[in-house]
Amino acid sequence: MTELLVNQIRPGMSVDGVFALKVKKLLPYREAPGNFLAVVLGDRTGQVEGRLWEGAEEACARLKVGDIVAVKAQAVEYNGSVQLRIDSIIKENGQMNPAKFIPAAEGLAEAKERLHRLIASLANEKLKSLLSLLFSEKDFYEAFCQAPAAAQYHHALLGGLLVHSVTVAAAADNVARNYPCADRDLLVAGAILHDIGKVREYRCRGAVEQTDEGRLLGHIVSGALLLDRAIERVPDFPEDLRLKLLHMIISHHGRYEWQSPKRPKFLEAALLHQLDMLDAQADMFSRAAAGREDKDSPWTGWVKGLERNVYCG
Amino acid sequence: MTELLVNQIRPGMSVDGVFALKVKKLLPYREAPGNFLAVVLGDRTGQVEGRLWEGAEEACARLKVGDIVAVKAQAVEYNGSVQLRIDSIIKENGQMNPAKFIPAAEGLAEAKERLHRLIASLANEKLKSLLSLLFSEKDFYEAFCQAPAAAQYHHALLGGLLVHSVTVAAAADNVARNYPCADRDLLVAGAILHDIGKVREYRCRGAVEQTDEGRLLGHIVSGALLLDRAIERVPDFPEDLRLKLLHMIISHHGRYEWQSPKRPKFLEAALLHQLDMLDAQADMFSRAAAGREDKDSPWTGWVKGLERNVYCG
Amino acid sequence: MTELLVNQIRPGMSVDGVFALKVKKLLPYREAPGNFLAVVLGDRTGQVEGRLWEGAEEACARLKVGDIVAVKAQAVEYNGSVQLRIDSIIKENGQMNPAKFIPAAEGLAEAKERLHRLIASLANEKLKSLLSLLFSEKDFYEAFCQAPAAAQYHHALLGGLLVHSVTVAAAADNVARNYPCADRDLLVAGAILHDIGKVREYRCRGAVEQTDEGRLLGHIVSGALLLDRAIERVPDFPEDLRLKLLHMIISHHGRYEWQSPKRPKFLEAALLHQLDMLDAQADMFSRAAAGREDKDSPWTGWVKGLERNVYCG
Amino acid sequence: MTELLVNQIRPGMSVDGVFALKVKKLLPYREAPGNFLAVVLGDRTGQVEGRLWEGAEEACARLKVGDIVAVKAQAVEYNGSVQLRIDSIIKENGQMNPAKFIPAAEGLAEAKERLHRLIASLANEKLKSLLSLLFSEKDFYEAFCQAPAAAQYHHALLGGLLVHSVTVAAAADNVARNYPCADRDLLVAGAILHDIGKVREYRCRGAVEQTDEGRLLGHIVSGALLLDRAIERVPDFPEDLRLKLLHMIISHHGRYEWQSPKRPKFLEAALLHQLDMLDAQADMFSRAAAGREDKDSPWTGWVKGLERNVYCG
Amino acid sequence: MTELLVNQIRPGMSVDGVFALKVKKLLPYREAPGNFLAVVLGDRTGQVEGRLWEGAEEACARLKVGDIVAVKAQAVEYNGSVQLRIDSIIKENGQMNPAKFIPAAEGLAEAKERLHRLIASLANEKLKSLLSLLFSEKDFYEAFCQAPAAAQYHHALLGGLLVHSVTVAAAADNVARNYPCADRDLLVAGAILHDIGKVREYRCRGAVEQTDEGRLLGHIVSGALLLDRAIERVPDFPEDLRLKLLHMIISHHGRYEWQSPKRPKFLEAALLHQLDMLDAQADMFSRAAAGREDKDSPWTGWVKGLERNVYCG
Amino acid sequence: MTELLVNQIRPGMSVDGVFALKVKKLLPYREAPGNFLAVVLGDRTGQVEGRLWEGAEEACARLKVGDIVAVKAQAVEYNGSVQLRIDSIIKENGQMNPAKFIPAAEGLAEAKERLHRLIASLANEKLKSLLSLLFSEKDFYEAFCQAPAAAQYHHALLGGLLVHSVTVAAAADNVARNYPCADRDLLVAGAILHDIGKVREYRCRGAVEQTDEGRLLGHIVSGALLLDRAIERVPDFPEDLRLKLLHMIISHHGRYEWQSPKRPKFLEAALLHQLDMLDAQADMFSRAAAGREDKDSPWTGWVKGLERNVYCG
Repeated sequence: MTELLVNQIRPGMSVDGVFALKVKKLLPYREAPGNFLAVVLGDRTGQVEGRLWEGAEEACARLKVGDIVAVKAQAVEYNGSVQLRIDSIIKENGQMNPAKFIPAAEGLAEAKERLHRLIASLANEKLKSLLSLLFSEKDFYEAFCQAPAAAQYHHALLGGLLVHSVTVAAAADNVARNYPCADRDLLVAGAILHDIGKVREYRCRGAVEQTDEGRLLGHIVSGALLLDRAIERVPDFPEDLRLKLLHMIISHHGRYEWQSPKRPKFLEAALLHQLDMLDAQADMFSRAAAGREDKDSPWTGWVKGLERNVYCG
Repeated sequence: MTELLVNQIRPGMSVDGVFALKVKKLLPYREAPGNFLAVVLGDRTGQVEGRLWEGAEEACARLKVGDIVAVKAQAVEYNGSVQLRIDSIIKENGQMNPAKFIPAAEGLAEAKERLHRLIASLANEKLKSLLSLLFSEKDFYEAFCQAPAAAQYHHALLGGLLVHSVTVAAAADNVARNYPCADRDLLVAGAILHDIGKVREYRCRGAVEQTDEGRLLGHIVSGALLLDRAIERVPDFPEDLRLKLLHMIISHHGRYEWQSPKRPKFLEAALLHQLDMLDAQADMFSRAAAGREDKDSPWTGWVKGLERNVYCG
Repeated sequence: MTELLVNQIRPGMSVDGVFALKVKKLLPYREAPGNFLAVVLGDRTGQVEGRLWEGAEEACARLKVGDIVAVKAQAVEYNGSVQLRIDSIIKENGQMNPAKFIPAAEGLAEAKERLHRLIASLANEKLKSLLSLLFSEKDFYEAFCQAPAAAQYHHALLGGLLVHSVTVAAAADNVARNYPCADRDLLVAGAILHDIGKVREYRCRGAVEQTDEGRLLGHIVSGALLLDRAIERVPDFPEDLRLKLLHMIISHHGRYEWQSPKRPKFLEAALLHQLDMLDAQADMFSRAAAGREDKDSPWTGWVKGLERNVYCG
Repeated sequence: MTELLVNQIRPGMSVDGVFALKVKKLLPYREAPGNFLAVVLGDRTGQVEGRLWEGAEEACARLKVGDIVAVKAQAVEYNGSVQLRIDSIIKENGQMNPAKFIPAAEGLAEAKERLHRLIASLANEKLKSLLSLLFSEKDFYEAFCQAPAAAQYHHALLGGLLVHSVTVAAAADNVARNYPCADRDLLVAGAILHDIGKVREYRCRGAVEQTDEGRLLGHIVSGALLLDRAIERVPDFPEDLRLKLLHMIISHHGRYEWQSPKRPKFLEAALLHQLDMLDAQADMFSRAAAGREDKDSPWTGWVKGLERNVYCG
Repeated sequence: MTELLVNQIRPGMSVDGVFALKVKKLLPYREAPGNFLAVVLGDRTGQVEGRLWEGAEEACARLKVGDIVAVKAQAVEYNGSVQLRIDSIIKENGQMNPAKFIPAAEGLAEAKERLHRLIASLANEKLKSLLSLLFSEKDFYEAFCQAPAAAQYHHALLGGLLVHSVTVAAAADNVARNYPCADRDLLVAGAILHDIGKVREYRCRGAVEQTDEGRLLGHIVSGALLLDRAIERVPDFPEDLRLKLLHMIISHHGRYEWQSPKRPKFLEAALLHQLDMLDAQADMFSRAAAGREDKDSPWTGWVKGLERNVYCG
Repeated sequence: MTELLVNQIRPGMSVDGVFALKVKKLLPYREAPGNFLAVVLGDRTGQVEGRLWEGAEEACARLKVGDIVAVKAQAVEYNGSVQLRIDSIIKENGQMNPAKFIPAAEGLAEAKERLHRLIASLANEKLKSLLSLLFSEKDFYEAFCQAPAAAQYHHALLGGLLVHSVTVAAAADNVARNYPCADRDLLVAGAILHDIGKVREYRCRGAVEQTDEGRLLGHIVSGALLLDRAIERVPDFPEDLRLKLLHMIISHHGRYEWQSPKRPKFLEAALLHQLDMLDAQADMFSRAAAGREDKDSPWTGWVKGLERNVYCG
């Protein structure tokens, strides 16, 4: 059966689809005692409002924001928009493909190719072994290719982690040429690995959510633990190289107050931090400008992640 | 052969002993061209100055501060103190017992007993298994019992880690009674484990030194890695308990700027942070007061770790 | 006449009671011009909504949030909750027992006993005289036993100051044993006294409010002034002991940015600050976990006093 | 007998005078074993070096920096400067006039007059009573007129407190005219009183030193305690005026991190803080420029109190 | 034709006037599908609500908050206030006198006089030439006399820049007498010039708005650029005086975090910063107290610019 | 006449050369009263010690550190190093080529070429006109090619500004390709111009020194002033482009506390800030590692500009 997407719903259609529950609210009837249920349903293509007129309290109690729900409804036009008159709304517990609900980053196929080329380009055999081993583990590789780079702000898309990691690693490859004393392979490997903890930090179902591990450990520590267990499986991995890679992961935020327990202590770690910042900033400014609401003004509204208004003049 | 200790040297003695090289400096002869070598030698009982009049440049080049050195010399009196006229001074490369050079914390035997009693008192079987396994590994246990709690400031003594960990764990045991909603076993286990990364952070030979791992990862991350590998070896260790223990280690400094990548997120983690601070502060104030130099004033000099003068009135 | 409490009101009852006015709002009639008055009334057992349909503007103008009001009304059921149809609502100006409106801390009787035992246990005669004198003054003693520990966040309960002070003092008694160089009596006395300024910082009528003195001076300075006047009345109180006690009061927040004009300068002051923090943190984490709203998630909502979400997993 | 001052000593004179011991150091003889004592002696007019060739160790042990010493010596010329060959140097324990050792601020007589005129100008009877009472107490008045405004940096002169207080109060008088909603009498009284705690913060003998009270309480809290006891003695002093004055004292540093436990909460307190800053800054910049050492450069060296170099171009 | 002002509108009047559009909102009809437009209109005398019942979506789309609009309407009474039933509302694009929409500071005529007297009083010929030249340029002079001192908080009035600059300059003139080493002319000239960049930072039409230049450069940099171009036109203006004046402009906020790229480096720059702060604080406290809403409490609500509640007791 | 360089001086040579005076100190003769003058002389190739035995006080008074001095002397060997026995040392006042005294950055010729290619590559005609005009002014161009990038830390070499600017601009060119929404020409032009104020911030004679303009305005403001005057000379330069370029200069430090009066408000400004940081960090880490002193340890000493030790393992 083809899936019905939000942006395909038209007034007059009978809707039978699966959506993520974004908002739920009990509201009083205008003319009578009692409440109806107002919901917002969404998938990767957009959001639509819905109303459940009967059994609202009961439905409200058994559903949670973030649930995947199977909905039967009639689509109508209300005040110029589409609205669903819901007949039934039931929680779906089965396995769900998050790609139905969360938009994906662009250029994923190309990013995968670049990832493999970058790994193949490593002259340092130990680093190449480590990365080959890690990215050939099917579970890890799939998780890495699907994970977002954040729950909010920049790269909150399926595949965001992959795209961000490859962008930073490619820039690292480039920059290494300007600074001959930099160890190119260490820098590139560190760039690929720096955010791997994010495969544990986020969970994608109806939306991107932070996991308990994400909140209790964070991707910096989770990444160090993941890497440490991977290194354990590479025979004769040099101890000083292990310390350098682990250091690059834990120092890549650059400052204690940004949750790095160490600040960068050598050139490659410092470069990695700067390149990570560069891509994160570029992403946030680009998105802020792209998402500007008031087209009459050259300024965006307040951008929370940047704590400023952005100029698009 | 009995070892000669610094506090046993008297003017007139022929000295043949092993010491840690604390300071070395080339100084010009007063009446002629050329230099002599002025050194400070030390062990756990104190320090003594020495002079090498011949071959100073050569000796200075082959010795490093922190080396263990075998010294032959004559002890003389100079300006009211003992001074060594050195005949030969040679680096010792063999295995050395750091206990000769670094003073030990008091109450080590009692602290070991309390440690075992605290582990035995755990009702949570998984926590008891984990701690029993960890502290029954000979290498780890010996390292834990010998490690200092710091390279400077508080607990810079052999066994300082053990004493500090047990003091905090015992206080945790006590405090848990005041707050019935606290999980006593989790708190006590976390208290015992919170600083285990320090077995990787410091190296003790002639003095306490920070290792490369200590500088690149720090005891917070090293501790998390150590604990993670230990948990791997306990069958069926619950994932949520693993996250809680790891969180307690990485959050025990309490603030990002104090190098914790996460702040405490639950009661036991918060209590652990506070109890760690309490013992560290008590230790620093006690030592500052005990080490006051000017006995005519009720104030100590500037105490670096506390960034203040301490009142002893 | 027995007082009617909010949690005793049932639909159908005629209500004639005294409550604290928590919220007042003028809202427009749905079907006609003009406004009605929507109020929230409360006491220590809970809150209830009310509606005044006639004379709303006039009532709104003469009542203030925080007032104690005598209310006559009919209780009805509305959308599944109890609501009061108010016939009259009049401000009460007389003396009111705040215990009707503000919940009390648990264990007050036991806390009083522990307070007296702690004072009796002081071996230092000057400290014992000072505390005996202070706590035997009826006005002060009653104020101390009734005052909350805060207007919000932790210990915002009648008797909160007493319970907090005794908890900290008992912990101080305990901790003093671990650190033999600590002056146990000074520490215990300081712990009992550290927050006495709160008897001037808060006023309890229908709710806990900060006084002008609380806002202009704060409990740290008010506490120092109170203590200074008490010490004046103890014959031959030693000047250095006076300075130490005053210092413990003004430094107990530990940092300038937490409104202490001095940071702790000696061991007992440092311990007091840490013990105060420990109890405050334990209280905030416990309350946050106890008040968690979404029972499906192991995380609380955002906790303002802690600036984080708390994990209850 | 006329006192001999440092700036009157000439080579060839027999010196018999009383000085403050500023520096003492044991230095080795150049040509023989043993040490001599090198001292720096000073009074309000300057400093002079001295040498004690015999009995140096014994003298060094019995003298402390800061002592007042009676010295007999021969003045000689050495490397172009005056130096004292000391025959005897003995600690003086008696009462000493600090004016011999610490320079005095300029314009003290005029400042006293302005102080009395400002007090006399107060129209608010309660404020006038309070200030009249306080400044008519002989001990307090003398201490106020002699106290420095700081131990270092700005106003480290006898009478510095008086001059600073009067300058700020006169500026307050002026400024009050620009802001008609300011209470001129409250502002002027607060300005006169804001630093009175400094009579307890400093002790003047051979030099300005901070007292134990200064270090444990600080002039902000000492000032509040002093004022509170003075207010107690004014019949029917209004409670709100008491709170306002106390608030002005404790908030006059303006920020928590500058050791004010409250920030200014009303106009007069805010103006007082700004006027205090203005005079302190003017004093530090003027002194920095006046004390510039390298006359070839328009820049002073690093000025610690200002954390910058000052331009004098 | 006389202009109709908001505070002249009475129920029953036919309104035909020009206003600034302060708020616009589409709201659903209560009894039928579709929306009406709710607006707030304002001028310097106040604000009034309006309703447009027909063509709401179209009007909402073509109007922007901040627009000047010509309105035809009937004034009615609604819930005790005046409300406009709007017949037509059309954007006005022509030149508008902002004085109709933005209130003006008091004492503008006197401030202009004081400005000219202060310029005339300069003994330094170069400074007098510079200021005479600048303030004799008609465009600049008019902009300077009309500009506000801020978009929010203090001095958000037409002419606020003039009044603030003259107040600071007059205080500078006064203060210069207390500190004889201050260069009075430099200080007064710097005070007059310190905020000239604000003529580029704000635009006044229906309200005070920040310009793109204000947001991208800020008045500190714009002021330096303006001054630099003015100095270029004064023959033989000394380079060191140019640097001092420019420094006073860029350092007058006093701290990096307050957007000064340099901190004050000489006395006059330091005094200017303090005097600017004094006037800004006085203004904010006075306004906060004047604008207190709850007359039953001696405290204002939260004052954003001061980050505190202000006491008016 | 060929110039004598420090690294060409050998014991036994008669020296007649011109050097920069790095250090001067009066030291007492060992065996007699009076002083000799100890100096350190330097040029771009190194430093050498010198002694003036006669007329030391007079010479010390007439010479200043930083002076260029003509020296006649005999080179001797002393304690294994070369030392100059100075016969005469006289200040040189004439024009001096700083290239004799300050080392030059590598790759200057190539950097100039890349600069011209980058300017030629600009498609935006206004930007190309501006940069062509600016860099074709001989005085500015020479100053730009000679200026250092800093007085200390990174790029303290003649030509450092050129090399740094070109490196950043080339990286900008590269990065612009990754972010298609970036305006490549604006970014490259901003990168070339971002530090032009440094031609006014530093003066090179015997060493790199900060000018009065550097200390009073700083290169951020000086750069904006320079750019503004250059833009004035380009006909019809668009106002919005002027604001953007000026904004990029004043925001390139990225944070208020790093002396930027504005934070970056658009993508190109944000990228420029990050690229500037990247090159500065790379430079500091590379230099720190290259300058490591203790070759036995993988760690450098404390690096002031980075506030850390750098790992070179």
